[in-house]
Amino acid sequence: MSYTESHAAAVLERCDELAAFSEEEGRLTRRFGTPALRQAGEAVRSWMESAGLSVGRDAIGNVIGRFGDRSRRTLLIGSHLDTVRDAGRYDGMLGVLVAIACMERLRAEARSLPYAVEVIAFADEEGVRFGTGYLGSSVVAGRFDPSALELRDSAGVTLADAVRAFGGDPDRLTDARRDPGDLIGYYEVHIEQGPVLEAGDAPLGVVGAISGQSRARVTFTGQAGHAGTVPMALRRDALSAAAHFVRAVEEVAHGQEGAVATVGELEVEPGASNVIPGRVALSLDVRHTADLVRRSLTERLHERAGAIAGTRGVALGWEVVQEVEAVRCSQELTELVSAAVAAAGHPVLRLASGAGHDAAMLSIIAPVAMLFVRCAGGISHNPAESVTVEDVAAAIEASSRFLKLLR
Amino acid sequence: MSYTESHAAAVLERCDELAAFSEEEGRLTRRFGTPALRQAGEAVRSWMESAGLSVGRDAIGNVIGRFGDRSRRTLLIGSHLDTVRDAGRYDGMLGVLVAIACMERLRAEARSLPYAVEVIAFADEEGVRFGTGYLGSSVVAGRFDPSALELRDSAGVTLADAVRAFGGDPDRLTDARRDPGDLIGYYEVHIEQGPVLEAGDAPLGVVGAISGQSRARVTFTGQAGHAGTVPMALRRDALSAAAHFVRAVEEVAHGQEGAVATVGELEVEPGASNVIPGRVALSLDVRHTADLVRRSLTERLHERAGAIAGTRGVALGWEVVQEVEAVRCSQELTELVSAAVAAAGHPVLRLASGAGHDAAMLSIIAPVAMLFVRCAGGISHNPAESVTVEDVAAAIEASSRFLKLLR
Repeated sequence: MSYTESHAAAVLERCDELAAFSEEEGRLTRRFGTPALRQAGEAVRSWMESAGLSVGRDAIGNVIGRFGDRSRRTLLIGSHLDTVRDAGRYDGMLGVLVAIACMERLRAEARSLPYAVEVIAFADEEGVRFGTGYLGSSVVAGRFDPSALELRDSAGVTLADAVRAFGGDPDRLTDARRDPGDLIGYYEVHIEQGPVLEAGDAPLGVVGAISGQSRARVTFTGQAGHAGTVPMALRRDALSAAAHFVRAVEEVAHGQEGAVATVGELEVEPGASNVIPGRVALSLDVRHTADLVRRSLTERLHERAGAIAGTRGVALGWEVVQEVEAVRCSQELTELVSAAVAAAGHPVLRLASGAGHDAAMLSIIAPVAMLFVRCAGGISHNPAESVTVEDVAAAIEASSRFLKLLR
Repeated sequence: MSYTESHAAAVLERCDELAAFSEEEGRLTRRFGTPALRQAGEAVRSWMESAGLSVGRDAIGNVIGRFGDRSRRTLLIGSHLDTVRDAGRYDGMLGVLVAIACMERLRAEARSLPYAVEVIAFADEEGVRFGTGYLGSSVVAGRFDPSALELRDSAGVTLADAVRAFGGDPDRLTDARRDPGDLIGYYEVHIEQGPVLEAGDAPLGVVGAISGQSRARVTFTGQAGHAGTVPMALRRDALSAAAHFVRAVEEVAHGQEGAVATVGELEVEPGASNVIPGRVALSLDVRHTADLVRRSLTERLHERAGAIAGTRGVALGWEVVQEVEAVRCSQELTELVSAAVAAAGHPVLRLASGAGHDAAMLSIIAPVAMLFVRCAGGISHNPAESVTVEDVAAAIEASSRFLKLLR
């Protein structure tokens, strides 16, 4: 095993150790503010300290390890420690542990850098407990919304109380923003959570942009009726209309390079085998790295839905649920990451991130760059999440080279 | 108001009276063996007696009123008194009350018939409590399956105990079959439960056949994945496959005169807006009055599903849930019904029954005929079920003429 691979093996062992800190027996679930997240944070703190970082926690409970003195401008490197329910062990954690491994290597090589580094382990990115995605990074980016403090989890606990119980300070969240003038940028390593690297036979991917996202709630309302007594010509079948639309979603997305569009939820009412569906509600999720393209695709789908509803005599409901703008990664940082990947002996595969990441939030206050690591089958948010030691070694090698290239 | 319309108004009043006998406050639910059904049966018994019928109850609790002596062959006229949950007040009851109204008219006219008549109010057709559709008529037709006595309702009560509590005799159900040699036929008046008569501007419809039915449980199993990270070309989206199939169902049924095909249930797994569906299960219901056509349609849909699954790289599951053969109505009786409708001054609109009825069960032991009554919007199994006094008058007039034409 090479020097880098032994570091990678240590990272994978630490991923296994963190996976043991869970709210649930036999599966990994680690939401914001829980004892399991506290335990994971403490383990990360001890590893940071072994790597020579001086470690603290901010007002929301992000664990931050600093290397280099206060006078220098800082590169932030991070990812998150919280998970979805029944999660895999790499989504988030891998990025934190690769960052720590890079700092260990710098220390072992007695290498200094012309800038400071802070490794950040965010306390909440998935937002499972309070519906607060990017909570940890929003505090750092100065985008925390204080009205969120009144949100309650399923047990009735408010976010404010959860922050307090977690050792944080709810009153300091709104002004915890990092000064953009102090920051060189933000760098994040993350598993791809998709199949592109595997299909392209590449261990690493350099992220050019994080897609924007349009979400809508679409309903088709026709007329329920008896499946035996209403002739086909007299039907206003809401599910037939919805199926027509699902096909249109697929067709429109296929026709646009780089676009994805998904109907992930679909509910039929009344939902009995002998009743013609009277109403269908479905979710639409459209993503693209170009906001104009995404908006135009969504608009076309809205028009198609209207045309389908019109010809079928059913009513269309269209409610915009969310509009998230795309984030461009820093060209300067991304070129350095690409050079580092190439210098490490790997093909430079550029791709977009279709999933959101803390980097999207950090882009508000700093230039950002991301490195994706191939994961088996593109599977994520699932205990079957898997990476190889070779690919993690590639990520450590490329990230270390990136740190050395950066001035 | 004409003589017949005053009879019709009385029938509608009785429908209202029966609707008050419910298991639930504020809505009509009347399942087999309940006090509500007992009350409805007692009301029907008293109206039968007022019409000069001699009334009894058989072993399952069907209420039977006889006119004419035992030596004569018998025409059965009937429908059912039980309902679905939150039912309308005409599905079933209208047929029983029109039959009683016809007997009252014969009596008022001091008219004799060259055969006997028995009006049967079946105790269970919907089968809501025990999942036993056609329970009442299956006893009369000699098709009662004794293993059904062990079925339990949601409260854990067995069918055997429910029959006993209802005053019936579970040990006599299997040999309660009526002798076909004694029977002239079975005649049933029922609301259409569909929109064909309304669309055809006809108060009455003469049923030529009751459709057969094929039911299947169809599953498409692809690969769940992240809605943002899996490119369109790499997806195996189970919902896209299912939508393709739903469109095929509609298209194939549209292309076959007299066919209906319905996907009424459709469940998506995992069913989250940001996850590509990995599995979809749906119900298929295909009906036609020609069994060969129905089987061929179902086979074509099975082939289409296989082709859709094949080109999309998803797995197809196809489980046959039920196969019910079509029932042809008696040509002889149906011609008399048609003549009676014409003589009553109404257009003779022939149609198929896409819903099942007690007549389907009775066809095992006797020639059957059915008369449909127009209902508003084709709506049934719903409190909004509605018929007009004029259309009920037409049904009484036509049915009375049918009884006089029959020898």
